[in-house]
Amino acid sequence: MPFHEPLAALALLLQGISAFGIDYTAAPPNLTTLFNNTLFYTWRPKTHLLPNFGHIGDPCMQYTDPATGLFHAGYLYSGGAGESGAAAGTTGDLITYVDVNEDPSFIRRGGINDPVAVFDGSVIPAGINGSATLLYTSVSYLPIQWTIPYVKGSETQSLAVSSDGGRNFTKLEFGPVIPGPPFPLTNVTGFRDPYVFQSPQLDRALSSQENAWYNIISGGVHGLGPSLFLFRQYDAEFRDWEYLGELWHEQANSSWGDGTWAGRWGYNFEVGNIFGLDEDGYNAEGEIFTTTGAEWSEEPIIPQVSQFREMLWTAHTLDTSSNGSLKLAPTMAGKLDWGAFAYAAAGKILPANSSASQASGVSHDRFITYLWLTGDNFGTSDFPKVQQGWDGSLTTVRESSVGTISGVVNNNLVNETGSWKISNSSDSTASTVELTTLKQTIAREVYAKIISNAERAFVEPACFVVNGSGVEAFQQSPISKFFMLTTTIRFPASARTSGVKAGLRILGSEHEHTDIYYQFSNESMIVDRSNSSAAASTTPGILANNEAGRFRLFDIATGAGNSSAIEALNLTIIVDNSIVEVYANGRFTLSTWVWSWYEGSTQISFFHEEADGVQYDNTTVYEGLFDAWPLRSY
Amino acid sequence: MPFHEPLAALALLLQGISAFGIDYTAAPPNLTTLFNNTLFYTWRPKTHLLPNFGHIGDPCMQYTDPATGLFHAGYLYSGGAGESGAAAGTTGDLITYVDVNEDPSFIRRGGINDPVAVFDGSVIPAGINGSATLLYTSVSYLPIQWTIPYVKGSETQSLAVSSDGGRNFTKLEFGPVIPGPPFPLTNVTGFRDPYVFQSPQLDRALSSQENAWYNIISGGVHGLGPSLFLFRQYDAEFRDWEYLGELWHEQANSSWGDGTWAGRWGYNFEVGNIFGLDEDGYNAEGEIFTTTGAEWSEEPIIPQVSQFREMLWTAHTLDTSSNGSLKLAPTMAGKLDWGAFAYAAAGKILPANSSASQASGVSHDRFITYLWLTGDNFGTSDFPKVQQGWDGSLTTVRESSVGTISGVVNNNLVNETGSWKISNSSDSTASTVELTTLKQTIAREVYAKIISNAERAFVEPACFVVNGSGVEAFQQSPISKFFMLTTTIRFPASARTSGVKAGLRILGSEHEHTDIYYQFSNESMIVDRSNSSAAASTTPGILANNEAGRFRLFDIATGAGNSSAIEALNLTIIVDNSIVEVYANGRFTLSTWVWSWYEGSTQISFFHEEADGVQYDNTTVYEGLFDAWPLRSY
Repeated sequence: MPFHEPLAALALLLQGISAFGIDYTAAPPNLTTLFNNTLFYTWRPKTHLLPNFGHIGDPCMQYTDPATGLFHAGYLYSGGAGESGAAAGTTGDLITYVDVNEDPSFIRRGGINDPVAVFDGSVIPAGINGSATLLYTSVSYLPIQWTIPYVKGSETQSLAVSSDGGRNFTKLEFGPVIPGPPFPLTNVTGFRDPYVFQSPQLDRALSSQENAWYNIISGGVHGLGPSLFLFRQYDAEFRDWEYLGELWHEQANSSWGDGTWAGRWGYNFEVGNIFGLDEDGYNAEGEIFTTTGAEWSEEPIIPQVSQFREMLWTAHTLDTSSNGSLKLAPTMAGKLDWGAFAYAAAGKILPANSSASQASGVSHDRFITYLWLTGDNFGTSDFPKVQQGWDGSLTTVRESSVGTISGVVNNNLVNETGSWKISNSSDSTASTVELTTLKQTIAREVYAKIISNAERAFVEPACFVVNGSGVEAFQQSPISKFFMLTTTIRFPASARTSGVKAGLRILGSEHEHTDIYYQFSNESMIVDRSNSSAAASTTPGILANNEAGRFRLFDIATGAGNSSAIEALNLTIIVDNSIVEVYANGRFTLSTWVWSWYEGSTQISFFHEEADGVQYDNTTVYEGLFDAWPLRSY
Repeated sequence: MPFHEPLAALALLLQGISAFGIDYTAAPPNLTTLFNNTLFYTWRPKTHLLPNFGHIGDPCMQYTDPATGLFHAGYLYSGGAGESGAAAGTTGDLITYVDVNEDPSFIRRGGINDPVAVFDGSVIPAGINGSATLLYTSVSYLPIQWTIPYVKGSETQSLAVSSDGGRNFTKLEFGPVIPGPPFPLTNVTGFRDPYVFQSPQLDRALSSQENAWYNIISGGVHGLGPSLFLFRQYDAEFRDWEYLGELWHEQANSSWGDGTWAGRWGYNFEVGNIFGLDEDGYNAEGEIFTTTGAEWSEEPIIPQVSQFREMLWTAHTLDTSSNGSLKLAPTMAGKLDWGAFAYAAAGKILPANSSASQASGVSHDRFITYLWLTGDNFGTSDFPKVQQGWDGSLTTVRESSVGTISGVVNNNLVNETGSWKISNSSDSTASTVELTTLKQTIAREVYAKIISNAERAFVEPACFVVNGSGVEAFQQSPISKFFMLTTTIRFPASARTSGVKAGLRILGSEHEHTDIYYQFSNESMIVDRSNSSAAASTTPGILANNEAGRFRLFDIATGAGNSSAIEALNLTIIVDNSIVEVYANGRFTLSTWVWSWYEGSTQISFFHEEADGVQYDNTTVYEGLFDAWPLRSY
């Protein structure tokens, strides 16, 4: 479909919205009865990465163009009339984006290798003839899911090259470079989402030539479990890839520890990334991390129903001992995002010489990640997509690094198979230890821009102490649904064995509210959406279930002797209309949708139960956010 | 294009032929100036296998349907409007055929696996669910030729199954079962024409399960030479095939001996068949033979020009000594047909319980073979195809077996690397030996039918002796261009060192003639086409070059003492309008086109030069042949 037709149609419809008279001060109708696109702005975020129209899928195909320094933030995209492929926004600062072309797709399904679909891929920035070279999953047959026998040849990996700065990727005129899983892996659970990377560590372990390119393909084997399949570049043109075995494999439906801290490995991996990190960001010689989507279901497994998808991160050692083949062994694992709708993370090195890093003076390579936030629960909910005209978004871009927690009392909170480990530099028998984990923070440019761009910033009283249960309204609340809130919550030592809950009520009014709180009883962060939207009772697909994630506050030694205190909870919440992202202590993230209906649902309150002596420090709201797409006409 | 449209159009045009008044008693015009289809009958054969209309390519996809006993003689087919695929005639007697369906294609290009073309394949008669299962080369990209770098993914091998007795083969809804040459064979010269077979000899050598199916894929590797790639069935559904290495490989552009008797192995194999033979026909435990098309060019090799194609046969031993992999080692080799237009042989077991064998009382399995006879020199000539409405044919079906030549004087004629070898049962130091070679004869049913169906049969004088040079007309010549001629030519011992030529002049008139003769000087059978067609001088593509093939007449011991005589030359010539097939001594074949123009060019003569004492015995002409397609409307 040409670009201008939907725009024109949309413009007309948008003009019609006021005529239709949707009243956000009254109870909503069944939203599925409305005309197409009439909800276009109702829940549309401002600062997030999503297409101007239509459906967004997995983030993927990202790269920094060495010629421009711009980061290309790609994503799967479906527009009107069956168009399906991938699109991208380019950014020179991680703050604002420009659609890479008007379509906005830069690759579309329908070629010889991909008659059915284009799935995730990744980009070698200076590949064939120095051009951006995309290795992607070209799909020829459906259905594909780990719950059913594999359709041979359904997923192959093909190449496309851009010679116009990423506006278009032209499929190379030959067949898939990886035509399927290597024999005798005949019944895989999946074989897609190739992730290209370089690794001096692998070069040495595999006696590869220097700066070889590798890729991992995510999937698994029926009856055995999920795997990352490792391939190595064989020729300068990336036409052939040598299979080097399963770099990582876990037993089907097993878990890290008892599953408390990192869910299940499941039956099938998707969207696997692999990268090296140090405490400053990306480092190819650093600690090896993977991120993987893990798919699983409770028994009995129902064909074509993948009940759970979990977005995991894992740190690894590189193990060369098992009969010559290279294996990753997990050392800690966690959830990259605990939100049930947050999945399909895609990360990429952001080099120090990128425009964004140059502009913000970051001299260290970074590793930045976007997740997909599905708008319709992976296609299973009846969310009023046609009324909205778009669905889904990516999450705010994040930076990853190796995080440390210092001065941690070496008690049984530490000694568990969790999403942390005692640092290699620590004496594990000492009374206090340093812990290592994956650190994830909002990209510094975004964080700074939200603050600097705030139309209004207001600070609640310092050292605000609460007791018992209650909901105390902020002295000042936003007048919009676009803001970032930061606070530090300090719990007394008694909290660990109490029924305390402490957090915030947001997007509140007499009709609606959403509670975000931490509770010690099960060490969980909760987003209570049960009263989030008046539309939930009128409209299918406006889900009202709680979101929850595990998060541990450690005991931290305080000065001399054996005194300690519970680690403070540093909360950052981004509310971008319907998108709510909760960040805690640089190591916990939960992203979700909150579809508040009433225009007055903007109040914020302190929310707490059994919270004697809980203290909120430095509670600040930055209202306004920023427009990530200043060049778009709507 | 629907079936009826070209037929209707053709019928109209055929009615028009007389109106256009093509006069076969006068010199031809430039035939490319005629209306489409006006030459439809001019050179059309009667007894041969070809489609009712359009282009025939390689014979392939043959099988005997166990449910009906009918042999399905398949071939690549292109009709009007870009339709391209494969069609077949079924036969219960090897004499007459019925189009397997009206289209007549039973498979067409244009699916997900074969958007560009369907190339040769072969059939497991009782495959998936007991149905006829076709493994064929599915083509996604062009160009493909051994003279250029391989386009990855251009040739894959896919499955199709017939559930309606072969009228249609339905492509299975998944990707290629063999998606390409196995890594690291990245730059092959070709990878096509899978030939399925069973072999207890391979089962034992490879410790396979009993009655495993194998396939060989023909091709080669750039810089190394031609190969047959061996695969073994991996699952009951034939979805996966295990690569077992190059069953046969020859050095690039090498030859068997000095190349005199079997041309060159070339750079690339095509259409490889493998089968076991004994003296009665097919025997899976018999001597292993292959037939392969070999492609090569003289230096410098010009991209996209394959200068020569040779249709070879080779006998082999099975060699398991080379580090565990199975290899075929040649023991003798020859040309399956010496005609430059005869190529792409396809053979298949014809089981003893087939309708044809049952009808003719043949209790031994046979191996029957058809070759393609290209009508336009592999697309390089400007033959007036549109004026003819069809092009190409298959050759008369042949039976193969292990042939013997007994009582051969053990002289230097024997002791050469040739298309024969001393039988294993012979003492190679004895004065006379038995030789083994590949025996090829016209299928017995066809041979018998030509005789029994002859409208006229006439015999030339017995023991007709000629001297010197001359052309003596037969006492009686055919009145048509449809006949079979048999004769035995006996040469005096002096012939071997003389300039003798002896044979026949056929399709003769004052305007045209074609000489077929044997000459001792270079042990060659010649088909001199230099005066074959008056149209050669008016029309491009009416080729007039000679055809030639090597053929050795051995010395045969005669009775007591050391006396011997030159082996008699037993000639059988089939003339089916424009198709001329020369068979000699059950071990030489040369098939070609002779496009005689004048309706009076039907005379036959004895043709000889320096032929003192040469004797023609039992010269007989059977005129009329038979209609191989009695159910066709034209």
